[in-house]
Amino acid sequence: MVPSVHIIGCGLIGTSIALSLRKSGYEVSAEDINADHVAQAQDLGVLATLSRHQPVAKSDRHPEVVFVCVPPGVAAESIKVAFERFGSALILDVSSVRGSILAALDPELTGSGRVMGAHPMAGREVAGPGAARADLFQDRIWVLTEGSDAARATAALVITDMGGGLVTMDPADHDRAVALVSHVPQLVSSALAAQLVEAEHSDLAISGSGLGDTIRIAGSDPNLWSDILQGNATEISRVLRQVSNELAELCTALEDKDRVRIEQTLRAGNEGRARIPGKHGSGSNRFESVNVMISDQPGALAELFAGVGVLDINLEDVRIEHVMGRPSGIVQLFVPAGESMELENGLYQRGFDTRGRQ
Amino acid sequence: MVPSVHIIGCGLIGTSIALSLRKSGYEVSAEDINADHVAQAQDLGVLATLSRHQPVAKSDRHPEVVFVCVPPGVAAESIKVAFERFGSALILDVSSVRGSILAALDPELTGSGRVMGAHPMAGREVAGPGAARADLFQDRIWVLTEGSDAARATAALVITDMGGGLVTMDPADHDRAVALVSHVPQLVSSALAAQLVEAEHSDLAISGSGLGDTIRIAGSDPNLWSDILQGNATEISRVLRQVSNELAELCTALEDKDRVRIEQTLRAGNEGRARIPGKHGSGSNRFESVNVMISDQPGALAELFAGVGVLDINLEDVRIEHVMGRPSGIVQLFVPAGESMELENGLYQRGFDTRGRQ
Repeated sequence: MVPSVHIIGCGLIGTSIALSLRKSGYEVSAEDINADHVAQAQDLGVLATLSRHQPVAKSDRHPEVVFVCVPPGVAAESIKVAFERFGSALILDVSSVRGSILAALDPELTGSGRVMGAHPMAGREVAGPGAARADLFQDRIWVLTEGSDAARATAALVITDMGGGLVTMDPADHDRAVALVSHVPQLVSSALAAQLVEAEHSDLAISGSGLGDTIRIAGSDPNLWSDILQGNATEISRVLRQVSNELAELCTALEDKDRVRIEQTLRAGNEGRARIPGKHGSGSNRFESVNVMISDQPGALAELFAGVGVLDINLEDVRIEHVMGRPSGIVQLFVPAGESMELENGLYQRGFDTRGRQ
Repeated sequence: MVPSVHIIGCGLIGTSIALSLRKSGYEVSAEDINADHVAQAQDLGVLATLSRHQPVAKSDRHPEVVFVCVPPGVAAESIKVAFERFGSALILDVSSVRGSILAALDPELTGSGRVMGAHPMAGREVAGPGAARADLFQDRIWVLTEGSDAARATAALVITDMGGGLVTMDPADHDRAVALVSHVPQLVSSALAAQLVEAEHSDLAISGSGLGDTIRIAGSDPNLWSDILQGNATEISRVLRQVSNELAELCTALEDKDRVRIEQTLRAGNEGRARIPGKHGSGSNRFESVNVMISDQPGALAELFAGVGVLDINLEDVRIEHVMGRPSGIVQLFVPAGESMELENGLYQRGFDTRGRQ
């Protein structure tokens, strides 16, 4: 028997949880204070209702698991209400911050074992129920923080049914980790993109994919993110201060023509990037890439991937480098280490422009 | 008649120019001070020789165009030697900085009209002749700076034959533009990635594509980049100081719980990013995307792109979001505005998981 689930908050995360669990045969209900969110979730087939704020009555529903999927600034309040309303249910809070929420909860709640942080590492640049997907959590990691062993077992069951993986961290470790890998990059990317507001159009016209990648997450939702950032202020500030100081030192080094100091940061950047697990960490050596020039015509990519399919080599990733509005591009195909030569030769023999030298 | 071309420096750029122009029927020779680079260029079929340093004799070759493709720190010296050796040839310098090189040249050279900056916006994370491609400049913009009208006409002919586009800028405007769209993003990305050197493995294990994109260019070559950055120190320092100050103010705002100040940067980041021309600038409204969940099996991408091909819709870009080493991913297909609905419905009818809701 799968547990019955109730979801508070029908944004991207809450609605995606509802869609995903329903697909796995769960009995799922949901609520939101925003009538528009409720309507959108209902359109997607979610059993959603408008939240009743006052009075906080014992619910006539008895879900075994309640997901709290509201902005972090109101998560503590929402957890308190859910704890009262839903008797013995496990309360899973998806917030991307932990310490500030725990600090706002009574020991009765945090000591109960049935309140737990469950943060899915599945952010997107889009928000709202309209962007929800049943597969949003497929292969994504959820970080579980405080809570009892029984709570952990139940959470693991539900998250696994959504296709997710699990890690467990102390709340403080969680907050330190997300400050470093998510919150600080957000502010750095936003602060860099903010420099473009007053720039000349002609300056921006020569920008390329380097700038585009660096400021991609600067497109994130300011409301949601100011809430997240405020909730993890101490950890973020510590790392962000280091970045700010590093940049100030680089300014001085540039003015002093101190090439050694500049190289030091560039080398540390190489080293730091190589530590990221995954295909793009240059130090990992787990992946190689093959570049193919294609014409930007309908069917050109299909032809290329059909060619890759014939060779029976599994692509790990694909990147397309090209200039906006121009008729061609270089497709970068990532494959496991040791397979790039076979792919390059195979594609070349089939007439693909793998070398740009014909 | 196409002009004869000589290339000084057989790195990524110089060797790619040689390959590209040879393909268009040019008579091309090349030289490098590094015997290994010469050998690699020769392996690619380039007529490359080891540079003769001393004495600087008049050349027995008479190229009409000479490309100087050496690190910016030695570009001025290389331009001087080329100016002497190659009588009336047009000297095109591909350096990504301008002012500091011009400052190191005699008025005789800069006033001659036959020395010109020609900077291709075609950087890659890779370097060296082994990464060279004949199509590196296909659809890429070259920024032309100083030089006579006759020089500009000749440069335009050669660059067009490499498939490139042209813009003209004053040297000072060029340096300001590349500081903003290329050099400052490089240092910001490197400084952020440098924070990961001492991080816990478990912290890095939960990182996602947001961090990965933000630090992608932190993988760039430290030797080449410290040369570039030193050559444009004044312009870079001005913008970088603003970023550093902005981050310092954000630290203070976090500590003071000044949510309004934090939101201000996040909104400015939205606005700055939307000003970038191209598909990812969220304000451009020129592109829409459709998300499709695929299994990460050989042939899955081919099947998807074959499906797109049947619908006769031209893809503008593709992104794959997935978690390393896991068996599935979401493919984001970018198409011109107004065509996403047709693509989504078409793929859905053909059995593709475009909605994640089945």
